[in-house]
Amino acid sequence: MFERMLENVRKTCPLIHNITNYVTVNDCANILIACGASPIMADDREEVEEITTVCAGLNINIGTLNSRTISSMLLAGKRANELDHPVVLDPVGAGASRLRTETALRLLEEVDFAVIRGNVSEIKTLASGRGTTKGVDADVADRVTEENLDEMVAFAKAFGAKTGAVIAITGAIDIVADRETAYCIRNGHPMMSSITGTGCQLSAMTAAFVTANPDHPLEAAAAAVCAMGLAGQIAHSRLTEQDGNATYRNYIIDAVYRMTPEMLKRGANYEVR
Amino acid sequence: MFERMLENVRKTCPLIHNITNYVTVNDCANILIACGASPIMADDREEVEEITTVCAGLNINIGTLNSRTISSMLLAGKRANELDHPVVLDPVGAGASRLRTETALRLLEEVDFAVIRGNVSEIKTLASGRGTTKGVDADVADRVTEENLDEMVAFAKAFGAKTGAVIAITGAIDIVADRETAYCIRNGHPMMSSITGTGCQLSAMTAAFVTANPDHPLEAAAAAVCAMGLAGQIAHSRLTEQDGNATYRNYIIDAVYRMTPEMLKRGANYEVR
Amino acid sequence: MFERMLENVRKTCPLIHNITNYVTVNDCANILIACGASPIMADDREEVEEITTVCAGLNINIGTLNSRTISSMLLAGKRANELDHPVVLDPVGAGASRLRTETALRLLEEVDFAVIRGNVSEIKTLASGRGTTKGVDADVADRVTEENLDEMVAFAKAFGAKTGAVIAITGAIDIVADRETAYCIRNGHPMMSSITGTGCQLSAMTAAFVTANPDHPLEAAAAAVCAMGLAGQIAHSRLTEQDGNATYRNYIIDAVYRMTPEMLKRGANYEVR
Repeated sequence: MFERMLENVRKTCPLIHNITNYVTVNDCANILIACGASPIMADDREEVEEITTVCAGLNINIGTLNSRTISSMLLAGKRANELDHPVVLDPVGAGASRLRTETALRLLEEVDFAVIRGNVSEIKTLASGRGTTKGVDADVADRVTEENLDEMVAFAKAFGAKTGAVIAITGAIDIVADRETAYCIRNGHPMMSSITGTGCQLSAMTAAFVTANPDHPLEAAAAAVCAMGLAGQIAHSRLTEQDGNATYRNYIIDAVYRMTPEMLKRGANYEVR
Repeated sequence: MFERMLENVRKTCPLIHNITNYVTVNDCANILIACGASPIMADDREEVEEITTVCAGLNINIGTLNSRTISSMLLAGKRANELDHPVVLDPVGAGASRLRTETALRLLEEVDFAVIRGNVSEIKTLASGRGTTKGVDADVADRVTEENLDEMVAFAKAFGAKTGAVIAITGAIDIVADRETAYCIRNGHPMMSSITGTGCQLSAMTAAFVTANPDHPLEAAAAAVCAMGLAGQIAHSRLTEQDGNATYRNYIIDAVYRMTPEMLKRGANYEVR
Repeated sequence: MFERMLENVRKTCPLIHNITNYVTVNDCANILIACGASPIMADDREEVEEITTVCAGLNINIGTLNSRTISSMLLAGKRANELDHPVVLDPVGAGASRLRTETALRLLEEVDFAVIRGNVSEIKTLASGRGTTKGVDADVADRVTEENLDEMVAFAKAFGAKTGAVIAITGAIDIVADRETAYCIRNGHPMMSSITGTGCQLSAMTAAFVTANPDHPLEAAAAAVCAMGLAGQIAHSRLTEQDGNATYRNYIIDAVYRMTPEMLKRGANYEVR
C-alpha cells in the first residue's frame, strides 16, 4: 500500500505551502522536490492566504517562530481548512518556551490538522498542555522503547481521537496513529539525529504524502515516515569513513530522490498495533 | 566574448549586496564566491543604503518577501541607482500572490534594473501587470519551445525596450535579450529544475557578471546564464546512480568554482536572434 | 590540553542557543552537532530569555541583524549573564554599516562576553569604536602576517584586557588571546575563505567549547579555532579536481564530525606568545 502513496506524490506533484523555520528551510524545499512534490515558502500575512489557495497542502513548522509569522500560520491554517487542504503541524520545540507551547496549542485550537508530527516530548507537551522540553530534542526520559511501546501507542491513539489528526511521534521507533490504528515503524538509523532538520524535512514530506492521498491520511503519513527512515538507512550505507553528518544530510535527500515505490514497498519495516 | 565576462568577475571580485529569500540564501552566497565575486546579505532598512554604497552591485529577490524587506528593497534599489550600480531583479513567484505581483511592479516603477531574470510565467506577469503563476515554477502552458521561440524572443525584446533592462527568461531554452538582440541559450540540464534555487543562484551570479562588465550588460547576463547551464551539465555528468538532487546542488556550485574562461568559451551553446 | 576541550564537548553535549543570521544558520546547527553539542535557534523577544535559560551557552551573531533581533540579542545576552552562561559574540560586518557597528558596540556595553570572534577588520572596528570594513571580509590592509604578528598579539591582549573577553581574531594566522596569553594558530587552509560562513560556524563551535570547559575559556576557544582549521585541512585533502567550495563546505563539517581528541592533539599547530 505504501508504494501507492509514493506513486501518487510522483503522479500528482502536489504544490505544498510551507511556513517554516529558516534553519532547515532549504532542506525542506529540496526533499519536497526529491519525493515528487513542489514547494513554495511564503510567510507574510499579506500573502499567505492567497498562496495557500493556489497550493494543495500546507506545512506549518513553528521553529524560529515570531509574532509576525505566528499570525501568518493562523491565517493560512484557517484558509487551508476552508479549502479542505490537508495541514501538517510540526511543533518544533513545544515545551521549550511558553511562546512555542502556547502557539502550538492555539494552532491546535483554531486549525484542524491532518497530521501532527513531532518528537515524543513535543507531542506530550501538546497533549498535556504544558511541557518541559529541553531544547528541540526529545528528553531521554520520554523515549519510546520496546518496553513502553503499547503505552505510547495508546497515548498516540488517544491524542489522535482528541484532535482528529493523525499523530506521528518519531524517534528510534516511530508511531503513526489515528484513533483506531497505529503503525509502529522501525526504519531509520541512529545517525539521523546527527543532522539538523530530519524532523522538519519529514513534516514537509508528510504534507506532500497526505495531500497526494487525501482518502488515506494515516497510511500516507506512515508511508512518509517509512520513506524518510528508509532513506536514512540507504544513505548510511553509502558513507565512507571520512563522511560525517553533512554528507549524510545530502545522501538522505538523494535517497528520497532515487526511491522507487518498489524500494519503499520492500524496505518499509512496520507492524500494526 | 563570454570568457572575458567570467575573467572580469574573477579579476575584479565585485562585492554584491543581496536582499534575498531565506530559502536559497546560502546557495546564493556560495555560488557568488564560486564565480569569483563576494557576497553580503543585509535586509534591514536601517542599513541597506549604506551596505549598497560599499558594494558594487545589488541583487533583489522577492522570494519570502515581507513588509519589512520590501521597504528595504526599494531603499537599496534607489540608492544603487544613484550610485550607478547595476541592480538585478528576481521576481520569484510574481503572479502567485497580489503582494508579489504588486511588489515586483512597484520595484519596476521606482528602480531602474540592469537585468530582470525570472521564469517565463514571472516575466509575463511583469509585462502584463497581472498573473496567474501557480507557485514558483513556470506554468506548462507558458513554456518556451522551439515552436514559440521567435514569438518569445520578440516578447523579451519588447519588454527589454519598455523597461530598459536586459530580460533573462530562463527555462529549457533561455532567452537573454535587450531591445535589439537576443541570445537563445541551450545550455543546462532538465534535472536543474529538481533543485530549489537554481534560479535564485543564477540571479545572484548575474549580478556579479553585470557588475564586473559594466559596458556589456547583455553579454554579461548571457554569459552568466551560459555558465550556470554549463555548470548544470558538468555537474550532471558526475552523478552516480545513487546521487540525487542534493548532491547535484553541490556539484553545480562546485562546477562554477572550477569553471575556467576557456571552459565557458568552449561550452557555451547559444545563437543570436 | 586541546584534546580534553573536545572530549568535554562530546561528554557534556552542551545545548547552545543561537541568535544568528539566516545565511549560514543551517551550517551552524550542523557543525554544532558535528562537534558534539546540540543547537537551538530562537530569535523572538518573547522567548529568547526562556530559551537561553534552558540552554548552557549562547552564541550571538549579528549577520542579517534587524531591529527585532537586536532587541532579542540584548535580552538573551543579559539573561545569559545572570545565569553565568558563556556568551560568544560574532560581530559579522561590524564597520560595514553604522547599524552593525553600533549594535556590536552596544552589545559590548550591555553584555559580558566570554569570547569575541571575528576577522581582524571587525575586531579593529570594535576596539576603535568605528570602522571602514568593506563588506564581511577582512580588509587586505588589516591582515595578520608574520611581520605584524607581535603587534597584533599585543592589540588582541589589550582588547582582551579592556573587555574581559577572550579575543579570537581569525584569518591566515589566528590569534586567540586573553589579557595575558595569546595562542597563535597556523591551522586552516586558504580555500576556507571560499565558503560562506566558516567564521559563523567557528563562532557557534566556540560557544560549545567554552560552555563545555567553563574553567578554561582561553584554551577552549583556542581548541575550537584549531579544530576548525584542522577540519579545513583534512577536508581539503579529500577534494578531487572536480570538487569546489560546495563539496568543501560539506567535508569540513564531516571532518569535525569525525575528529577525535587524539586527531586534534596531533594536528593542532600553535605557539604561545
